[in-house]
Amino acid sequence: MIDPASSVLLTDLYELTMLQAYHDRGMNGTAVFEFFSRKLPPQRNFLIAAGLEQAIEYLCGLRLATEELAFLESTGRFTSAFLKSLEDLRFTGDVHAMPEGTPFFPDEPILRVIAPLREAQLIESRIVNLLHFQTVVASKAVRMVLAAPERLLVDFGLRRAHGAEAGLLSARASYIAGFSGTATVLAGMRFGIPVFGTMAHSFIQAHDSELQAFENFVRSHPAKATLLIDTYDTVAGARKVARLAARLARDGMTVQGVRIDSGDLGECARRVRQVLDAEGMQAVSIFASSGLDEYALRDLAAAPIDGFGVGTKMNTSADAPYLDCAYKLVEYDGRPKRKRSEGKATWPGRKQVYRRFNADGLIEGDTLTVEGDLQEGTPLLKAVMKGGRPVGGSPSAQAVREYVRTQLAALPERLRLLDHADPFVPTCSEALRLLASQVDAEAECAGQ
Amino acid sequence: MIDPASSVLLTDLYELTMLQAYHDRGMNGTAVFEFFSRKLPPQRNFLIAAGLEQAIEYLCGLRLATEELAFLESTGRFTSAFLKSLEDLRFTGDVHAMPEGTPFFPDEPILRVIAPLREAQLIESRIVNLLHFQTVVASKAVRMVLAAPERLLVDFGLRRAHGAEAGLLSARASYIAGFSGTATVLAGMRFGIPVFGTMAHSFIQAHDSELQAFENFVRSHPAKATLLIDTYDTVAGARKVARLAARLARDGMTVQGVRIDSGDLGECARRVRQVLDAEGMQAVSIFASSGLDEYALRDLAAAPIDGFGVGTKMNTSADAPYLDCAYKLVEYDGRPKRKRSEGKATWPGRKQVYRRFNADGLIEGDTLTVEGDLQEGTPLLKAVMKGGRPVGGSPSAQAVREYVRTQLAALPERLRLLDHADPFVPTCSEALRLLASQVDAEAECAGQ
Repeated sequence: MIDPASSVLLTDLYELTMLQAYHDRGMNGTAVFEFFSRKLPPQRNFLIAAGLEQAIEYLCGLRLATEELAFLESTGRFTSAFLKSLEDLRFTGDVHAMPEGTPFFPDEPILRVIAPLREAQLIESRIVNLLHFQTVVASKAVRMVLAAPERLLVDFGLRRAHGAEAGLLSARASYIAGFSGTATVLAGMRFGIPVFGTMAHSFIQAHDSELQAFENFVRSHPAKATLLIDTYDTVAGARKVARLAARLARDGMTVQGVRIDSGDLGECARRVRQVLDAEGMQAVSIFASSGLDEYALRDLAAAPIDGFGVGTKMNTSADAPYLDCAYKLVEYDGRPKRKRSEGKATWPGRKQVYRRFNADGLIEGDTLTVEGDLQEGTPLLKAVMKGGRPVGGSPSAQAVREYVRTQLAALPERLRLLDHADPFVPTCSEALRLLASQVDAEAECAGQ
Repeated sequence: MIDPASSVLLTDLYELTMLQAYHDRGMNGTAVFEFFSRKLPPQRNFLIAAGLEQAIEYLCGLRLATEELAFLESTGRFTSAFLKSLEDLRFTGDVHAMPEGTPFFPDEPILRVIAPLREAQLIESRIVNLLHFQTVVASKAVRMVLAAPERLLVDFGLRRAHGAEAGLLSARASYIAGFSGTATVLAGMRFGIPVFGTMAHSFIQAHDSELQAFENFVRSHPAKATLLIDTYDTVAGARKVARLAARLARDGMTVQGVRIDSGDLGECARRVRQVLDAEGMQAVSIFASSGLDEYALRDLAAAPIDGFGVGTKMNTSADAPYLDCAYKLVEYDGRPKRKRSEGKATWPGRKQVYRRFNADGLIEGDTLTVEGDLQEGTPLLKAVMKGGRPVGGSPSAQAVREYVRTQLAALPERLRLLDHADPFVPTCSEALRLLASQVDAEAECAGQ
């Protein structure tokens, strides 16, 4: 079966119906599209660009399988000549992008595609799908990292992520945002992300006694056992762990930690800590999970909890599960373009974002301008593909994670807080405003 | 590269660490797990069971690839004997489930797995991932169907769905909920779902004139063109379409419809309808899109709009992107089990849901009981796998869609409305209460 992740038919039908019309008219000039977010959800003070590695992989592998072409033919919507022309379709264009992990703000393109029209158009749906999702998750996960900066945060959300790829890529997105790892094994295999795991209630229940379950688990994982203690009574569970740990210590086995997954996590953790400390088990860590989000993490700042399993609300970005984002044509055949739809107007032309920093290294603001118009600051969009091939190589997830750490440090304090602060809005340069008026004037002349 | 959709490693690490411990103790008795939702989001009056077909496919294909075993070995967490035992792992169990498309309520299992412990445990993460997601989307999409019962509804949301599988499976889930089709081409190929498409603003912008863009598109799609008219000025766009349609009619070409994607959709549609009708173009339909959800559809009930493209808010189930659901051990080695964690207690034993209907065929209520305890009504859980093989064959997406239609008709009116109504809560039978007390009494004796 075709893997949807790399299928060219994981696209909107209109991409293909437009390509048919372009084919019929011989229209295949150079098109420039940019991906950006029109505005931020109210619960986000900045976004973290993510998904570029997967976007580049997708572009590198772009080709239609024989059975895909056969399906298109079976729809009766396309001409044979057009379908024939798709056989050798590959991505041959250039891509510029902000490095993954870069904080960005409304109207700032994080990716620009320059390619023959048919290629640049066809890839729209999947490119948006890839960049949007990881950006959504990284931008949510980073808030949890900011809310619990000194704690171990582990992605626990595979089961309620929206499908297989969402599970895999939300592990990646949360890791680059600063999580310590994930429970999703495949993310460890695919991206080299550290994998963590504890045990489920079913393990306890499958045994006749909780204590026996604990012991069996520790004997199988003598140095790495985190025992789930809330199946029946959390404090009683902690006492059993303490007794067990003392006994197993004689055999050279240690209990690494305990997990609490229900009730008032802060209060339970305090009582469990007391039980463990009273037995001299200061080294046994406390791990907590259960519907956590960044606000719950902030509220638990004083609790004696060493690490958190964070699932559903991170993986689905529950309070803002989507962005108002778009992949828009900004130039065709050498002519800048813009759309003027009510409430959805866009800036024309190839653009660049310049970021200004103050003497302390903090971001002061951004300027949005046309490419080639030098502005103060550091340009954020860089070449990542040339002529259909990647340039420079992809940084590892670990490297992106480290880059995010430095980027967070450069954000002004108010943007790093959970509460709403006005995000930066880039200054639009004179050159960009002039270009927009020119494009509008030409459109007026053409009677649009 | 391994397709995450079928990878056994698309699982939480704890499934595997528990299996290691089970292996070490030789624990592999028959386990029974049930999947259910603890409570409904406040914005849902019922849920629609979905995802069963993909769950069965996953179980039928369960096996570890050589490179997956190699990765597990490389982690150093597992013994060679255990990894060796995984080589021939297959799913050999029985599965009972509610048919896809069945409305269900809190605490009602929609799927039960009866299998050797290691199999029933290992599949947890992905089974939840599959059932949860499509249930979330079908339960959202059906609200849109109820809000706009006579309109064409098309899934437009691939780009903001959470990844590749979410795009593909949200097309399926919305179709079975009653949508007319999807824009996602691969969903047409994979599930036989009707595929719809219009055009993007970029198509208009790539041309020097909007009129020329319209004409080029119609000439390439002479019977199936829906023209996007809001790139510059919606009403002016409609006038161009009217002039063009009159001219192309002489060549035997028709314009099927127009699409509006911005502004006040109701007001724009009324003005566009006037323009088209004044030119005798009553047959040209109006299609609208732009951030629609069920409430927007309800507000547009009186607008002259024939169909809607519904995207992001449906595909992400934006107002309730996840369910409080679980896959819980209810029996091991012949003994019923339950969990008593604070706020997360579950009912023990293999259960059945009986649904009662009144003389008009409307649902009166459900009874939750232990399997084998006959109750009034129709039992909802039926065998779908026996000994690891599917029983009876999977209904087509079309058949499930038709079943959903009949199920919606059987819901009481108050549950079909968008506003919050108390959903049914199943009556727990005497037999089930008795079993729960017995299990608790045994646990007390065991000192849990």
